[in-house]
Amino acid sequence: MRIVVDAHGGDHAPLEIIKGCCMAAEEQKDISILLVGRKNELQQVITENGLPAKRIEIVDAPDILTMEDEPSSVLKEKQYSSMAVAFRLLKEDKADAFVSAGNSGALLVGATLLIKRIPGIKRAALATIIPSAEGPYVMLDCGANVECKPEYLDQFATMGSIYAKSCLKIENPRVALLNNGTEECKGTDLHQKAFQLLKKNPFIHFTGNIEGRDVPLGGCDVVVADGFSGNIALKLSEGWGKFMSLSLRDLLTKKAKSKLAALLIMGQIRELRKKMDYKEYGGAPLLGVTKPVIKAHGSSDAKALKNAIRQAHIFAESNMILEIEKSLAKE
Amino acid sequence: MRIVVDAHGGDHAPLEIIKGCCMAAEEQKDISILLVGRKNELQQVITENGLPAKRIEIVDAPDILTMEDEPSSVLKEKQYSSMAVAFRLLKEDKADAFVSAGNSGALLVGATLLIKRIPGIKRAALATIIPSAEGPYVMLDCGANVECKPEYLDQFATMGSIYAKSCLKIENPRVALLNNGTEECKGTDLHQKAFQLLKKNPFIHFTGNIEGRDVPLGGCDVVVADGFSGNIALKLSEGWGKFMSLSLRDLLTKKAKSKLAALLIMGQIRELRKKMDYKEYGGAPLLGVTKPVIKAHGSSDAKALKNAIRQAHIFAESNMILEIEKSLAKE
Repeated sequence: MRIVVDAHGGDHAPLEIIKGCCMAAEEQKDISILLVGRKNELQQVITENGLPAKRIEIVDAPDILTMEDEPSSVLKEKQYSSMAVAFRLLKEDKADAFVSAGNSGALLVGATLLIKRIPGIKRAALATIIPSAEGPYVMLDCGANVECKPEYLDQFATMGSIYAKSCLKIENPRVALLNNGTEECKGTDLHQKAFQLLKKNPFIHFTGNIEGRDVPLGGCDVVVADGFSGNIALKLSEGWGKFMSLSLRDLLTKKAKSKLAALLIMGQIRELRKKMDYKEYGGAPLLGVTKPVIKAHGSSDAKALKNAIRQAHIFAESNMILEIEKSLAKE
Repeated sequence: MRIVVDAHGGDHAPLEIIKGCCMAAEEQKDISILLVGRKNELQQVITENGLPAKRIEIVDAPDILTMEDEPSSVLKEKQYSSMAVAFRLLKEDKADAFVSAGNSGALLVGATLLIKRIPGIKRAALATIIPSAEGPYVMLDCGANVECKPEYLDQFATMGSIYAKSCLKIENPRVALLNNGTEECKGTDLHQKAFQLLKKNPFIHFTGNIEGRDVPLGGCDVVVADGFSGNIALKLSEGWGKFMSLSLRDLLTKKAKSKLAALLIMGQIRELRKKMDYKEYGGAPLLGVTKPVIKAHGSSDAKALKNAIRQAHIFAESNMILEIEKSLAKE
């Protein structure tokens, strides 16, 4: 199994990316990594930091694609960037999956136009794994498509459900539509029409609408959303997670007796932090394209990247894409 | 100052509603309350619970409007319900403000069709006060209008800003548009067009787009949203607040030493809980109608209702509605 990784994507590239690759190669003996970026620079970082770059091969890519670059530049001006070169390796079957913490828009453009959508899939969706009180759930779309049609949401539901089954090992995942009320008549015209399609979708176990209030408390495995409200919900959850973490820190460090309290419940705090930590869950798979592409969080550190590689590995080993194709054939 | 209160609205009506009225009358000596509902039943609850119903006058309304009733029934089938009778008292200037924890849809219909929108206001908006790490902020619209036009969002911004100034006493409130990215070009067509209007709005201090991630961390006093994503964001925040509270409880009660830890940080926990408690902030004002109408949360207990009455009092004493009219005259 070969995973290609964009060395220059994300806020902590390339050091944390390389460290993450080393950790992944150490943990998963059956993978090798193609690390794409400026060869000399990457080699120097590895040497200077004494990193054990076992089963990691560097592929040279002289350009850097930044967060400010237009998404389409991955196809044109920046076709020698680490992201563009990585996409070509994936396309030419020189790698089985691709992980990048870089420019999301460019990743979407590259995946859609170079790797291509699965025939019949109308839009690719960014699926994110988000912690809840009950455990993680998948939400999609989280921002690849701000304007949606009911049919897109119907396909997102099928793809999200297959992902939850194949990669998260959830049997018969509960699929719900993010809406402003539980009643069938709720939401915009888009959501009302999507509800009717989801009700009839034979590939999912549809449990109806879910309100924002019930999402963090669990009770659902796949949350289907239009890319605009999905993005708001995802980022709001990140913000609340951070707020929670800061409040907890304040609570347990401000006074001498708070520190004593912290000592007493250290184990449970660690457990809670782990449950809440998006880094544990890897990145966001881009569903609907013909190969596994994982968007790691822009602020990924080595651990987050290692987990995104693990997730890419699971994705590439699963029959996910085949299952999506099957669902389309039966339609 | 006379506040009219719907005795039969909400999950804990009428007992908690009456208790809340008693608390409010006790706390604010310059108000009197018109409590609308089934007179005999309310009288009985007061007697049985030995409640000090000082400065509370009961107005009889034989019908009950439930959460299942169609919103329009407040005008037709249920015109003798507590909500409909209360609206007529407000309309006839027999009260200065109205508080209800009942059916939101009916409250919106009653406010718009009986009390009427301020001439020039295109849509009334539900504004909610939500806790953040920095303190409370106002978000609107939170669900009165699932389908919006750019002009509505522009007016929501003006009304939210005036509310933050007049009632929350925030000088020069920072107004931001809830969007899926900070750049000007982000969002749907609606959000892009709204951004352009907000940039030119002379009545607000517009700080640009705000992403979901930054909302719970503070940095903004008024968050403008379309009613669909605003509702998702509001309810998601409620859900996260509950998740946080449950996690904290688990953390501090599961083991004997957790309980000791809880004792050590009791004061700070109480502070955090208070900061996070929506009940502290009262209800959601319906902005854009000619009289103060406050929607208390459906799950309001006595404290939440008391605070909603305090908020109605502040609203009625402010020059809020006049300021909205002024902003329209200058347009």
